[in-house]
Amino acid sequence: VGAPFTPIRLIPDEATIVILDQTALPAREEYARLSSVRAVCEAIRALRVRGAPLLGIAGACGMAIAASDDSHDVSLRRAAADLAATRPTAVELGAAVEAALGAALAIEPAGRAALLWQAASAMLDARRAGDARIGKAGAGLVPHGSAVLTHCNTGALATGGAGTAFAVIRCAWEEGRLTRCYATETRPLMQGARLTTWELLRCGIPATLLPDTAAAALIASGGVQVVITGADRIAANGDTANKVGTLGLALAAQRFTVPFYVAAPHSTFDPRTADGSAIPIEHRAAAEVGGFEGQRWAPEGVEAFNPAFDVTPASLITAFITDRGIILPPYAQGIASLLDER
Amino acid sequence: VGAPFTPIRLIPDEATIVILDQTALPAREEYARLSSVRAVCEAIRALRVRGAPLLGIAGACGMAIAASDDSHDVSLRRAAADLAATRPTAVELGAAVEAALGAALAIEPAGRAALLWQAASAMLDARRAGDARIGKAGAGLVPHGSAVLTHCNTGALATGGAGTAFAVIRCAWEEGRLTRCYATETRPLMQGARLTTWELLRCGIPATLLPDTAAAALIASGGVQVVITGADRIAANGDTANKVGTLGLALAAQRFTVPFYVAAPHSTFDPRTADGSAIPIEHRAAAEVGGFEGQRWAPEGVEAFNPAFDVTPASLITAFITDRGIILPPYAQGIASLLDER
Repeated sequence: VGAPFTPIRLIPDEATIVILDQTALPAREEYARLSSVRAVCEAIRALRVRGAPLLGIAGACGMAIAASDDSHDVSLRRAAADLAATRPTAVELGAAVEAALGAALAIEPAGRAALLWQAASAMLDARRAGDARIGKAGAGLVPHGSAVLTHCNTGALATGGAGTAFAVIRCAWEEGRLTRCYATETRPLMQGARLTTWELLRCGIPATLLPDTAAAALIASGGVQVVITGADRIAANGDTANKVGTLGLALAAQRFTVPFYVAAPHSTFDPRTADGSAIPIEHRAAAEVGGFEGQRWAPEGVEAFNPAFDVTPASLITAFITDRGIILPPYAQGIASLLDER
Repeated sequence: VGAPFTPIRLIPDEATIVILDQTALPAREEYARLSSVRAVCEAIRALRVRGAPLLGIAGACGMAIAASDDSHDVSLRRAAADLAATRPTAVELGAAVEAALGAALAIEPAGRAALLWQAASAMLDARRAGDARIGKAGAGLVPHGSAVLTHCNTGALATGGAGTAFAVIRCAWEEGRLTRCYATETRPLMQGARLTTWELLRCGIPATLLPDTAAAALIASGGVQVVITGADRIAANGDTANKVGTLGLALAAQRFTVPFYVAAPHSTFDPRTADGSAIPIEHRAAAEVGGFEGQRWAPEGVEAFNPAFDVTPASLITAFITDRGIILPPYAQGIASLLDER
């Protein structure tokens, strides 16, 4: 699965990365060269680069750029603090920066830049390989001649590889199984409308956008044969937190007997979380509801309910598609075995 | 139930109506005086006045204005054609205009203006009385201390009376049963974000807006004790077509055992439609999806799935709330009796 565009590209010789500027999408496909920690921080803060896994890679690259400029402890510590502070709730960003700092400080300054570029590159390679395995594992679950419904953005723009749910969709398309992909708008941040449709069109996959309100009607109509989403955290029993709106899709899929799949790398499974009730749900700003990008439709001052995620009970999930293969119910056992693998 | 604002007001002595200009909401509460058929047509076409029942009243008023100006056959026929052409799919608008024309042509020109003003006024009075009965019947279904979730706009802005689902919410609030009303944004046209929140705040009811994607999470969280919507057409078996997104709410309500009520006047029940599969669903323009009011988020040219309505199976509906009382399952029998009443 080769991507028809490159969300992030490393140029160690020039101590530079090139990112696809996601704020210009879907109107324009613009790439930005980032050659300083300051530029990487600005790009992360401005959401030019986004998506949890891709942010981890961007953070690792930021540390490599820092070491190329000045590989002494104080400089690397400052770079790590600056990078991690750009989006404090992005777990993978913080973890990648922390890991890079630790690895660098363990060796002499002279070797640090080379090590960090190598590590960032290995991280991107691992993501690409993992995503490709998810895609290959999941494509077989898509019957020939299927239309698929997905939610939010789970493609290369989110992970840097082929994506999670999106990797399955692309693989199924390349294997000739897929007729069309339906994408929800994904209020409030519109990742489906802005990013997923763009990726689909860019990959040459026939794409249909729908309001989130129309998803149940689409599923009821028999218009899709498979529903597939990504995941933000999967508990030990299979309960799955993902972008808000996922639960509604899973309920409709069950009612109208359409299979509902969740695609995620094994790192998304959290064995220390027993079930969905233990997953903390981030609630976001009221201003995101009743408006978008400076436009305002609702009366000023109205309160808002704006959870970023919802929790889909394991009983609504037909199977998990991972970089280590498919997991079928009963999930507690399958998830434990998945994480035991070496 | 007295409304704190007046969506339409008749001034027969001045051959004029005053409408609340809904295109200015929620930013400004502006009223427009309409004293010619041309002005009424413009107001309907520009969506200054909207909502199926309210459009019927506006159409009847337009015919009265026409008769006040020139009550001869040719003038009234032209007015009827012009009014009906403003929104060809608005059934109640066309029916009201047709009825007014028929009634006028049956008598001498001299008496026509008075007759049509009287008829329009009676139509508005009947709507107000019917909505008040829906509100009173439904309020008793809202347990004391409840929060309620609703969808789209079903208030005075839609009907000219107290509304349908909204009448129940207002009555429950006035009876001290309600703690808060949650309103979905209602993509793609945002009637919940733009109109329902405005009506709630204007009525002094604590209001919380949510993205359509968050509705299942809200219901799952136990945050609402009742879900209530309006209806566009109810089949003889109780299957209900309503604003797209209703089906998803009903599925979540059933899964998490929250009662799901549909409020509608008896005229919304259609005994000639056997079940939901026989209800034609209007599909609207692709341009409504992936953007709003001139703003565009999705790539140009992406296809869209944009049904205006969905069909909720009768089995998901806890009860119907009508101007003739509550209907409980089995619905086929209850609906038949409802329509047999004189």
